[in-house]
Amino acid sequence: MNSRNFFWARYQITADSRAHAEKISSQIATEQSVEMPVDAVPESAAKFIAIFELAKQVSEKRWITVIYYPKPIVDGDRTQFLNVLFGNISLKSEIKLFDVDPGYLSELFAGPSFGIVGIRKLLHVPYRPLSCTALKPVGLSVSQLADRAFQFSTGGIDIIKDDHGLTDQSTATFDDRVTAIVRAVRKGEQNSGKKTLYFPNITTSPLQIYNRFQKAVELGADGVLLSPQLTGPEVLHDLAQEQILPVMAHPAFSGTFVTDPLHGITPSFYYGTLWRAMGADCIVYPNARGRFLFSENVCNSINSACRSDMGDIKPSLPTPGGGIDRDSVSRWMKQYGNDTIFLVGGSLYQHSAGLETAAREFQNVLLDYEK
Amino acid sequence: MNSRNFFWARYQITADSRAHAEKISSQIATEQSVEMPVDAVPESAAKFIAIFELAKQVSEKRWITVIYYPKPIVDGDRTQFLNVLFGNISLKSEIKLFDVDPGYLSELFAGPSFGIVGIRKLLHVPYRPLSCTALKPVGLSVSQLADRAFQFSTGGIDIIKDDHGLTDQSTATFDDRVTAIVRAVRKGEQNSGKKTLYFPNITTSPLQIYNRFQKAVELGADGVLLSPQLTGPEVLHDLAQEQILPVMAHPAFSGTFVTDPLHGITPSFYYGTLWRAMGADCIVYPNARGRFLFSENVCNSINSACRSDMGDIKPSLPTPGGGIDRDSVSRWMKQYGNDTIFLVGGSLYQHSAGLETAAREFQNVLLDYEK
Repeated sequence: MNSRNFFWARYQITADSRAHAEKISSQIATEQSVEMPVDAVPESAAKFIAIFELAKQVSEKRWITVIYYPKPIVDGDRTQFLNVLFGNISLKSEIKLFDVDPGYLSELFAGPSFGIVGIRKLLHVPYRPLSCTALKPVGLSVSQLADRAFQFSTGGIDIIKDDHGLTDQSTATFDDRVTAIVRAVRKGEQNSGKKTLYFPNITTSPLQIYNRFQKAVELGADGVLLSPQLTGPEVLHDLAQEQILPVMAHPAFSGTFVTDPLHGITPSFYYGTLWRAMGADCIVYPNARGRFLFSENVCNSINSACRSDMGDIKPSLPTPGGGIDRDSVSRWMKQYGNDTIFLVGGSLYQHSAGLETAAREFQNVLLDYEK
Repeated sequence: MNSRNFFWARYQITADSRAHAEKISSQIATEQSVEMPVDAVPESAAKFIAIFELAKQVSEKRWITVIYYPKPIVDGDRTQFLNVLFGNISLKSEIKLFDVDPGYLSELFAGPSFGIVGIRKLLHVPYRPLSCTALKPVGLSVSQLADRAFQFSTGGIDIIKDDHGLTDQSTATFDDRVTAIVRAVRKGEQNSGKKTLYFPNITTSPLQIYNRFQKAVELGADGVLLSPQLTGPEVLHDLAQEQILPVMAHPAFSGTFVTDPLHGITPSFYYGTLWRAMGADCIVYPNARGRFLFSENVCNSINSACRSDMGDIKPSLPTPGGGIDRDSVSRWMKQYGNDTIFLVGGSLYQHSAGLETAAREFQNVLLDYEK
């Protein structure tokens, strides 16, 4: 085997014995490459059959298996890469994708175009943790949303993103909304004396999304929000490679890939490694102790995957949200460290003194980090 | 409540008591609409909060709850519709989407452009079940794949689709492959005296897919194969609405939505109802008793959803595969009935007398249906 012609992917499988684990491994290798009985594969295609190596038994019923996929079956198509990794076997059970050959990820993906350093440059914030909030709720008018953006930027928030449910509703159409909010944020910056970035949500039909991205650029947005599992994951890569605006990835509609502990993809690989490789500068995920499921260990593992050395692929900013409020930011900041965006939504809106004060208090917690 | 301004979605949830079930229902309603604490929603947006009705307890811990979503939060955006149905709650656990207001599906989606009757017209086959096979494996040259297609069409197969892992690999690029296979299939038709449809796989980056679709049209393909969960589901709708070629949908990368019995989306709603509404003329799913998980009940429920009355939305052809071989076709045909495409792959390739004979024997089983 010439290892340069293969890339590996590591899975956890569930099996009763070594023989059973080998059988499952062999089935995965065949299913995800030639997808036909091995005895019917013509000799000329034999080298396209993936091969496996049973790595180890990790508990009574769990085994780690490594599948070596021939690179020519992907041949540079990133959507086909996802299909090879977890296409048909998504329909089986108790197969969990752990990670993939990082060398191959670097061959196939270019990673974020801005990354941690790039986002910090846009904000002129070299070191401290970053703040983010979401414009919401859906249903407000353009002027109501713009007024909220003005208050948040006046209070000094680093990044304001649209709620991921704001699309092109007639209550606040995309063009009118982005135009008004960009203007409001620029006005707020004059009050705060600092930079605030605005990331509108461009998630919509995959065939229309490039137009919406271009529109965001034209209207002066500072970045975009995208839900890759709704648009097709490779959109993330294609937009990042434009190298015009940073992309923040949102996990809407992706949960079933990561919520079953025995089947799917680990959150650290899916959000941290894969979305980063595909080009997400900022990666939103549901924080522990909030409305969602992830444990602190899972969150730590996503953070590590976002920031670890991946050669030429720049690090991304983990963006925990959905479980962080004004009072707990300080605690999470100590745990997650400076290269993190803290996404706080609901509790700012609940502040009795209004959004500007709420934003300023939130921002002050982050400024404390440097003291 | 003016019911014309809402659409309903029905979920199964897991709860310890009625009060707990009401709490979960309320959380879903808020999460999937305004996504913020209800006490912080401005009065002008209050009508955009979804509401719930706890329908019934179905077993000790399972409850059915109905969420009524205000239509303006979707406002015609089909990708946003998926986000509202199962965006953030995909990241929770034990929430299973059962079905959605069929009247609203008809408002939002146009369904297949060909449907069962349209596909039968293309094939000049008014009544009997239909046959399908897959060109494989990846790695073969254009001439090898074209030769297989020639043998299958000479043997009389109704539909030949690409394996869903054939994209634009240099071993058989998209343009060369489709050109050669279209020619081979037309030649085979002269031997068989009957029509054979060829559906190349156009799945690739969402931003490039429309070009590949157009190329398939230009090169004379009879339909296309698409994996909606790899391309972004709404691509299915957009291509179907071109009304040029039938679309066959493949379940690659979609399995985690349907494999957890307590969390995700039911297979009958996801594949049967939703993909049909979005425009799939033929819907591939993994058949029972094969390499995958679905029970016969699940398969029957998908078939029903494909064919049931949905008003203006045409019925789709369920296309069970991955668990059907030459010997079992007859049994499945009796069970699933005539409005079914039987997808048989591996066992044709294993036939000792070659592909043409294998295809002819397979076809003869279907012809027997009319006797």
